[in-house]
Amino acid sequence: MGVEAICETRVLGGSKEAAKEARSRVRGFRIRWAESAASFKKAKVSAVARLAGVKVEDEGSALLTGSQRTCVLETKEGPITQSYAVIRYLAGLSPQSGLYGSTAYEEATVDQWLEFCVLEVETAVVAAIEHGKVVEPAARADVEKALKVLNRVLEKRTFLVGERATAADVALVCVLKSVFCDAKLLGPALFKQQYPHALRWYLTVAHACAPELGKGAVDAVKPIASLPREEAKAPKGTAGGGGGAGDPGSLFSRTFARSRVRLKELLSEKSIGSTATVAGWVRSVREAEKGTLCFVELNDGSCLGSLQVVVASGIEGFSEMKGCGGTGASVKAKGEVVESPGKNQAIELRATEVTVLGPTRGGPDRAPGAQYYPLAKKFHTPEHLRAHAHLRPRSRLGSAVVRVRHALAFATHEFFNGLGFLYVHTPLITAADCEGAGEQFTVTTLLPEEGERADTIPRTPEGFVDYSKDFFGRKCGLTVSGQLNVETHAVALSDCYTFGPTFRAEVSHTARHLSEFWMIEPEMAFATLDDDVKLAQDYLKYCVSAVLTRCDDDLAFFEQANEKGLRDRLRSLASARVPRLEYSDAIEILLVAIRDGHDFENKDIAWGVDLNSEHERYLTDVVYKGPVVIVNYPKNIKAFYMKLNPGSNPPTVAAMDLLVPKIGEIIGGSQREDDLETLEQRAKEVGLDPKSISWYADLRRYGSVPHAGFGLGFERLIMLVTGVENIRDVIPFPRYPGHAAF
Amino acid sequence: MGVEAICETRVLGGSKEAAKEARSRVRGFRIRWAESAASFKKAKVSAVARLAGVKVEDEGSALLTGSQRTCVLETKEGPITQSYAVIRYLAGLSPQSGLYGSTAYEEATVDQWLEFCVLEVETAVVAAIEHGKVVEPAARADVEKALKVLNRVLEKRTFLVGERATAADVALVCVLKSVFCDAKLLGPALFKQQYPHALRWYLTVAHACAPELGKGAVDAVKPIASLPREEAKAPKGTAGGGGGAGDPGSLFSRTFARSRVRLKELLSEKSIGSTATVAGWVRSVREAEKGTLCFVELNDGSCLGSLQVVVASGIEGFSEMKGCGGTGASVKAKGEVVESPGKNQAIELRATEVTVLGPTRGGPDRAPGAQYYPLAKKFHTPEHLRAHAHLRPRSRLGSAVVRVRHALAFATHEFFNGLGFLYVHTPLITAADCEGAGEQFTVTTLLPEEGERADTIPRTPEGFVDYSKDFFGRKCGLTVSGQLNVETHAVALSDCYTFGPTFRAEVSHTARHLSEFWMIEPEMAFATLDDDVKLAQDYLKYCVSAVLTRCDDDLAFFEQANEKGLRDRLRSLASARVPRLEYSDAIEILLVAIRDGHDFENKDIAWGVDLNSEHERYLTDVVYKGPVVIVNYPKNIKAFYMKLNPGSNPPTVAAMDLLVPKIGEIIGGSQREDDLETLEQRAKEVGLDPKSISWYADLRRYGSVPHAGFGLGFERLIMLVTGVENIRDVIPFPRYPGHAAF
Repeated sequence: MGVEAICETRVLGGSKEAAKEARSRVRGFRIRWAESAASFKKAKVSAVARLAGVKVEDEGSALLTGSQRTCVLETKEGPITQSYAVIRYLAGLSPQSGLYGSTAYEEATVDQWLEFCVLEVETAVVAAIEHGKVVEPAARADVEKALKVLNRVLEKRTFLVGERATAADVALVCVLKSVFCDAKLLGPALFKQQYPHALRWYLTVAHACAPELGKGAVDAVKPIASLPREEAKAPKGTAGGGGGAGDPGSLFSRTFARSRVRLKELLSEKSIGSTATVAGWVRSVREAEKGTLCFVELNDGSCLGSLQVVVASGIEGFSEMKGCGGTGASVKAKGEVVESPGKNQAIELRATEVTVLGPTRGGPDRAPGAQYYPLAKKFHTPEHLRAHAHLRPRSRLGSAVVRVRHALAFATHEFFNGLGFLYVHTPLITAADCEGAGEQFTVTTLLPEEGERADTIPRTPEGFVDYSKDFFGRKCGLTVSGQLNVETHAVALSDCYTFGPTFRAEVSHTARHLSEFWMIEPEMAFATLDDDVKLAQDYLKYCVSAVLTRCDDDLAFFEQANEKGLRDRLRSLASARVPRLEYSDAIEILLVAIRDGHDFENKDIAWGVDLNSEHERYLTDVVYKGPVVIVNYPKNIKAFYMKLNPGSNPPTVAAMDLLVPKIGEIIGGSQREDDLETLEQRAKEVGLDPKSISWYADLRRYGSVPHAGFGLGFERLIMLVTGVENIRDVIPFPRYPGHAAF
Repeated sequence: MGVEAICETRVLGGSKEAAKEARSRVRGFRIRWAESAASFKKAKVSAVARLAGVKVEDEGSALLTGSQRTCVLETKEGPITQSYAVIRYLAGLSPQSGLYGSTAYEEATVDQWLEFCVLEVETAVVAAIEHGKVVEPAARADVEKALKVLNRVLEKRTFLVGERATAADVALVCVLKSVFCDAKLLGPALFKQQYPHALRWYLTVAHACAPELGKGAVDAVKPIASLPREEAKAPKGTAGGGGGAGDPGSLFSRTFARSRVRLKELLSEKSIGSTATVAGWVRSVREAEKGTLCFVELNDGSCLGSLQVVVASGIEGFSEMKGCGGTGASVKAKGEVVESPGKNQAIELRATEVTVLGPTRGGPDRAPGAQYYPLAKKFHTPEHLRAHAHLRPRSRLGSAVVRVRHALAFATHEFFNGLGFLYVHTPLITAADCEGAGEQFTVTTLLPEEGERADTIPRTPEGFVDYSKDFFGRKCGLTVSGQLNVETHAVALSDCYTFGPTFRAEVSHTARHLSEFWMIEPEMAFATLDDDVKLAQDYLKYCVSAVLTRCDDDLAFFEQANEKGLRDRLRSLASARVPRLEYSDAIEILLVAIRDGHDFENKDIAWGVDLNSEHERYLTDVVYKGPVVIVNYPKNIKAFYMKLNPGSNPPTVAAMDLLVPKIGEIIGGSQREDDLETLEQRAKEVGLDPKSISWYADLRRYGSVPHAGFGLGFERLIMLVTGVENIRDVIPFPRYPGHAAF
C-alpha cells in the first residue's frame, strides 16, 4: 500500500479531511507572492500553515496577474489566491488543530473575526502604508475603534473563539504587528494604557507566531511585555529562592480539565440546583422503597466526606447499579444537586444517569459481590489495613493520612521556598561513610539472582568480596542523612534544604522506626544555633498551622478515631511560646524530679548522659506543658560535626533538640563546626579517617562560615499532627525488617 | 553543690532574675483566691504563669481579708496580692519569655496596656457582672470605646507591644472573653463586623491561652473564627488537594529573621542610601589607589549577580580583607548602599565594617591564598567542576543549575497541588519485580564489610545465596519507577503524583543516563489518554513558564554559556500548540523522509519498530519545528500495563510520548489497562508470574476505573530548560558506573 493510500484510509480515523492533512504534511504546498506583498501577509499565512502542521514552500516573488493579486497557493486541485482564502484553506486542512474552531458555530465565528480583521484593521493598515500621511488620521481612528471592540471582547475571553488560538487570532495578531511596526499607527505606550486585555491576548498569540513575526512582534510592545513580570515580583522579605513569585500559568492556555466535579469542591460549594457529573467508589449501597430506589454513598478521595447519590428505578444504569457488588465498586453519576432531606448531609445528587465503571468482583469466581473484598464496609484494624496496603487508601484512615501527608509536604516546600531556601536533591546512593556506617544498607550488583549459585560473587585472592568489581567500583550504601551533602550547597548558596528518603538497616520492630523514611534537612550559612532554633520552631508551627487551616475535616476524623482534643493540642502547639532550656538545667530538673519521687524507668541521670524519651516527655508533658528546646549538649553524646562551644568546660556543643508533648524529640539540629583544625581533631576522636572526609573539611578550608541546620523525620511529624501511633500507618508502603511487599 | 545553688549561679548566664526563674520552675508558688473572684481573673493569672514557665499551685478559695481582695500569691519573700500585681511579678520572673517585653521601653508599654485593660475594660465588665442591667448601657459604651482604640492600634501590629504576646495581650484577652461569655456585653457578630483587627489578634492570643480560657474562648467568637478560613479558601477549580489554600503563616508569630540582606533582594531593590549588612563569598578582590582601596566582588548564591563592596583603608577589617586569600573567602560587610560609578553595576556597598569569616586557605601549609583552591577565578571545564562536586555550587554554572532545579521542583508541586493532586511517597526499596528487573540494584545487608571474608554470606544447601536471611527476608532492589505503587493511590484518591528518586543499574556512559535520578509520575483516575496528553502538555508548559518568569537572570547566563536563543526557544515551547500524531503517521513521515534521502543513522523503519532519538528529533526539529505528541503505539514495544486499544489491528496501546525539539522524548505515558482479564493475559505474555502482580490486579478486581498517567525524568527537564548537555551537570552529586563519590 502506498503512502498516500495509507494516509487516505487510516490516518485520524479515516476521515477525508484527516487524509488531506496527513498528505499535505508529507508532501507540502508551494506558494508564490506578488512583489508588492506586505511582509505581514506572508507572516500570517506561514503562521497558520505551521500551526496547521502543513508544509508550505515559498517559491519567492513572482509577477502575478491582476486577478491573483497578492499570492497563489498551488494545490493538486488547482491554485488558491487571496491571502485570507489561503488561510481558510490551510486551517481547514487540519481540523485537529482547532484553527477553524471545533464546531460549526465556532467555524462561523472564526470567519466573522477574519472579516473583522480584513475590514476593520487590515484595510486601514494597507491604506496607511500605501498612502502615508494623507490617510493616517482616518486609518488611526479606524484602528482605534477596532481595538476598542477587541479589548472589550477579550476582557472575558482568552481567545477570539473557543479556548484555543484560531486562524482569526493568528491573522489579527500578524496584522496588528504591522500597526505597530510598519504603519506605526499606534505606539506601544498607548496600546498598553488603553487596551490591556487586547495586550494580554496579543502577547499570548504572538508567542505562538514568533517564528513568522520575527523579533519585532513582541519587541514592538516590549516596555509592555516586561510589565507583568515586574508586577508579579514576590513581595519583599518573602522572595522565593527561584520559585514561587510570578504566575507561570498566565503564559499559556491550559488544556486539561476534569470531566467530573471533585467532591471536595461539590460538597464545599453546595451549589443546589446545578447539574453535576461525579465519579468515585461506593462506600455503601442501600435499597429503599421496595427496591425502587438506591442510596449510594460515593467517595472520590478528594476529601473525607461522601456524596449521597439517589438512583431511582426509572433511570439508565439502575439495574447495573443494583448488581455492582456494593462497597468498593466504581461509579460515575450525573444528576441534579438538591438539598438533602436526610439529616447526615446538606446536599445529595439526584441521578439522571449512572454508569458502573467497575463492579466489586469479590464474590465467588470473581462475580460481583463484596464477600472477599478485603475492605468491605466494617471496622478494620490497622494491622489488617497494613496487610492490604495497596487498598489502604480506600479506607477513611488511609485516605485521611495521605491527604494530611500531602498537606505537610506542600507546606514544607511552601515554607522554605517562601524564605528563599533552595531545594537540593542529595544523593541516595553513597560511598561516604561519616555517620552510622553500621546501619547502612549495601547497594550492589554483585549478588546473583535468587536461585543462582553464590560462587559468582567476585573475590580478592584473600577471599574478601571484591568491591572493585561492583557497579560503583567500591562498596556503596544507602544514605542515612543528606546533611553533609547539603552543607556543600549551603556554604555556596547560603540557605538550602533537602527533603528526601533516608534509610536505616537497624533491626528495630518498634512503632517509631522504619527502614525507609523521609527527612527534611534545612541548612543555613551565616547562621548560629539561635537562628537554627528560631527556624525550627517557625517551621514546626507553620506545618501544624497548615494542617489546622487546610485539613480540618481530616483532623476532626483523627480526633474521633485516635485522640480526643487533637485539634486543641495542635492549636496550642501552633501558638505556644517555645522556652529554651540548657541541657544542664534539664538534668537538674530531672534530678529534682527523681528526688521528689517521680518514677522514671531509667533513673540513671547525671550530667553527660543522653535523655530518654520518658525524660523528654516529663519536660514537655509535666514541667512545661508544651514544646521546649534543649540546647548545648555534652560533646560526647553528639556528632563530630557539631560546633564545640568555645570555653565550655565540661565541653558542650551548640546542639539543640526541639521536644513536643506526647512525642518527645521531633527536631534535632546544631550549629556546625566551622573551624578546620577542630573539625579534623573531632573526626579523629571518633575514629574517622581524615581522608574520607577531606571533601567535607574543604568547606572549612576555603571560605568557612558559621552555619547551622536541623533534621526532622517527616513520618514523626505526621504522627504528631494526626495522633496516629504506629509509624507504619503514616507512610504508603512501610519498610521494616522482613517487610518490603508491594 | 545543691540544686538551688546551681540554679542561682549557672542558669541562663547567672543573672539574678534567671536564677529566680529556674528555682520557681522547680519549686513553684502557691496562690489562694477569694470566693468571689471571677473566673477570668484566675485564667489570666494562670495563663501568664504557664507562659512564664512558672508553676503556680492553686490552693483553692479562701476567706481573704479586705486588703488582700481577690488573691494572694505566696512567695518566699512574702505574699503578693491583686491579680495585676501577681501578673507583673510572674511575667518579670521570666525575662526570656518576653511577657514583659524585652527592653525598658517595652516594659513601660506593657504596663500602659495593663492599665488600659483594668481601666477601660475590666472595670466595666466587673460592674456589668456585679450590677447587671443597671449599668449595662454605660458598660457597653465603655467596652465599645476600648475596642475601637484596640482595633485601630492592632491594624498595624500583631501584638500590643513588640513582636510577641506579652502579659498585656494575655490579660486583655482573658478579660475580653468575659465580655463575650460572662457579661455578654457584646455579641460575636458585632465584634466580627466592627473590629476585624482586634478579632485577628484575639484569636492569635486566645490560642496561646487556650488551656486557661477553656473551650469558651474561641467558641465565643466561633462564627467569626471560621470566617478567615472561609475567606482563604482556594478559588474554584484550583483548589489544592489539601495543601495550598489558606495562610498558615497567620496563625503564629514568626521568630526567624536573617541578620543579613540577601543579594537577591538588595540587587533587585536598589535601595540607595540605606544601610545594609551582607555576607557571601569573594569572587574577586582588586586593589586600587595604591593599595588604599579594595574592590570586593561578593556573591551569596541567592542570585547570579554579585555586589561590589568597596573597602577603604581606614575601616575596620581592611587589612584582614587584603589577606583573605582572594577568591573563595567568606566575608561579612556592613555599609551604605550607594550608586556605583562603575559601568558594570547599578549599586555598590561602601563598607563601614568588614569581617573575614573564613579566608581561602589555598596557599602552602594552609596559608591564605587561592593557589590550591580548585575554584580559583578562571574558566573551569564541566569535568573539572564535576570532579569537585562539593565546591561546584560556588561556580556560576553550578549555582545557576541549582536555582533552576529548585524553581522547577517548586513549580512541579505548585502545579499539581493547584490541580488537587496528592503527593504520594512511593517506596524506594521494593521486592516487586514488574519492570526491568535486570536493571535493579540489589539492597542487602548480607554482604560483609570491605576487607572481611566473603564466607559469611549465608547460603542454601544448594549453594545459592540464602535471601531468606536478608534484611527483608527476600531479595530486594531499588525501584525503577513508582508508577505501579502510585496507581494504588490514584484508584482510591482519584488524582495523585510521585516525585522521588529512581534507579537503574544499567552500565551506561552516555551524557543522558544516570544510575540515580528523580522522576515525576502523576496518575489520574477517571481519565483517558486524551486527559493524559492534556495534563502532560500543561505541566511541561507550566514548568517552562515558571523558569521564564522566575529565573530570567540564570537563563540569560545559560543563553550566553550554553545556547544562543535559549529563551526564545523556551518561549515558543511555552506557547506552542502541541500537535498530536498517530504512531502510524509518524512512521509514514519517516518513510517518506528516507525515500527523499534524509540521512538517518538507523534507516530500518517499519510499522512496529520503536523510534530512536534521531527519528523523534526529525519530527520535532524538522517536520513540526516544535513539540509533538505521538499516540497509539504498537502493543509489542510498550509495557504490559498499557491499555490495549479495543479493536486495533495490528494491536496498539493507548500510549503517548511527548517529544520536544533538541531533546526528543521528555514525557512518556499511557492509559492503563483496566480490564482484569486483559491485564492478566498481557502479564502472562511478557512472562510475569500472575502471583507477583496479584496486588496490582486487585485494582482491576475491585472497582476498576479508567486511569492514566505519565512519567517525566526531572534531569531531562532541567537539561531542556538550561541547555546543559550532560545530565551529570544538572544533579548535585551524579551517580553513574564507577562514580559515587561524596
